[in-house]
Amino acid sequence: MKVKTLTLKKNLIPEATIRRLSTYLRCLRISLEKGDDIVSSPLLAKRCHVSESLIRRDLTYFGEFGIKGKGYKTKELIAAIEQILGIHSPIKVIFVGCGSLGRAVIRHLKNIPYFNIIGAFDKNAEQCGEEFEGIKIQHTSRLPEVAMREKPQMAVIAIPPDGLQETVDLLAKVGIKGILSFTLSQVKVPENIILNFVDIAAEMEFLFYKINQ
Amino acid sequence: MKVKTLTLKKNLIPEATIRRLSTYLRCLRISLEKGDDIVSSPLLAKRCHVSESLIRRDLTYFGEFGIKGKGYKTKELIAAIEQILGIHSPIKVIFVGCGSLGRAVIRHLKNIPYFNIIGAFDKNAEQCGEEFEGIKIQHTSRLPEVAMREKPQMAVIAIPPDGLQETVDLLAKVGIKGILSFTLSQVKVPENIILNFVDIAAEMEFLFYKINQ
Repeated sequence: MKVKTLTLKKNLIPEATIRRLSTYLRCLRISLEKGDDIVSSPLLAKRCHVSESLIRRDLTYFGEFGIKGKGYKTKELIAAIEQILGIHSPIKVIFVGCGSLGRAVIRHLKNIPYFNIIGAFDKNAEQCGEEFEGIKIQHTSRLPEVAMREKPQMAVIAIPPDGLQETVDLLAKVGIKGILSFTLSQVKVPENIILNFVDIAAEMEFLFYKINQ
Repeated sequence: MKVKTLTLKKNLIPEATIRRLSTYLRCLRISLEKGDDIVSSPLLAKRCHVSESLIRRDLTYFGEFGIKGKGYKTKELIAAIEQILGIHSPIKVIFVGCGSLGRAVIRHLKNIPYFNIIGAFDKNAEQCGEEFEGIKIQHTSRLPEVAMREKPQMAVIAIPPDGLQETVDLLAKVGIKGILSFTLSQVKVPENIILNFVDIAAEMEFLFYKINQ
């Protein structure tokens, strides 16, 4: 069982496959906690709410996994998916915007061991100085200094829409490569940065469309 | 310009198209606020961060939109997309779980006019009785009574993982058709209900994978 991503043309791998790997990872971790050294293919499929053939097809992009007729070795498959996603070592993350949504997301990601939140910033003086979940909230003006020292790779944005462009530009300037933004606003994305949005309203609309089919 | 969804086999429309309609809607609303009665195809594409041809292809599923060489009539296209998504009348939503994440999501959706949050529930007595964003937080034991009276169509869940199955079963029993869950846990989904997850960690992992390509 060898991860062979490096020998593949990476852009051939569908985005949906990569997204599902995260799901498989979380389900495999549940299995590990339950003490299952091996997870059968039907059980993993059931836990992940996908079909067995889809799991097989997704994993085929990266190598050969599974023991015929038995299933997958839980620990090995976890390690392989972690390697594929690149999360075998901690990812340094900073937060911009520490209002209610920002704080809720900090609390959420704090529990996941491979996310290392190394800084949280806000423009609102009221938020600054406070400690939240063990992280000191600092004024955004201190972000460049911290980024220079700590070299975070990713940022999460949860600020009012007006400030999005300025924040994205600042993050690009200090070397952030990927941004997940809960703030939805028109923005020109600088080169060398990937900006993804979490659009909760769109998720609700999509769901509403589906229940009406 | 006529929406013809009803004459189509709806399951032929890709999920990604439906998801993008929400994005188009939000970008069109920005255009409307800016006073643009007509949005050119390149401008809409730029605002939505997609290609012109993709917008055209997505809209083709539903009818003929746009004025040759000019673009789209903003108001008309907004109305058409709202009709396609079914959000031309308010959607009744309830919340289960009013901790920090639940409250942040309530605050977020509260600003969108077609989501009508008719109830918020929590098992934690400390949360109950309080009013948040104009919505009284009630004990979950009162959920069936409220649901019977108000007939909400959708629910948002943001509770500790242990309670997910019980909550999903309760929501199915009271007639909820669609659930958006921020709680990630293994769950058996009852028939006649669609359960989607918002997996913030998976979004971060996906982004991390992409920046390393």
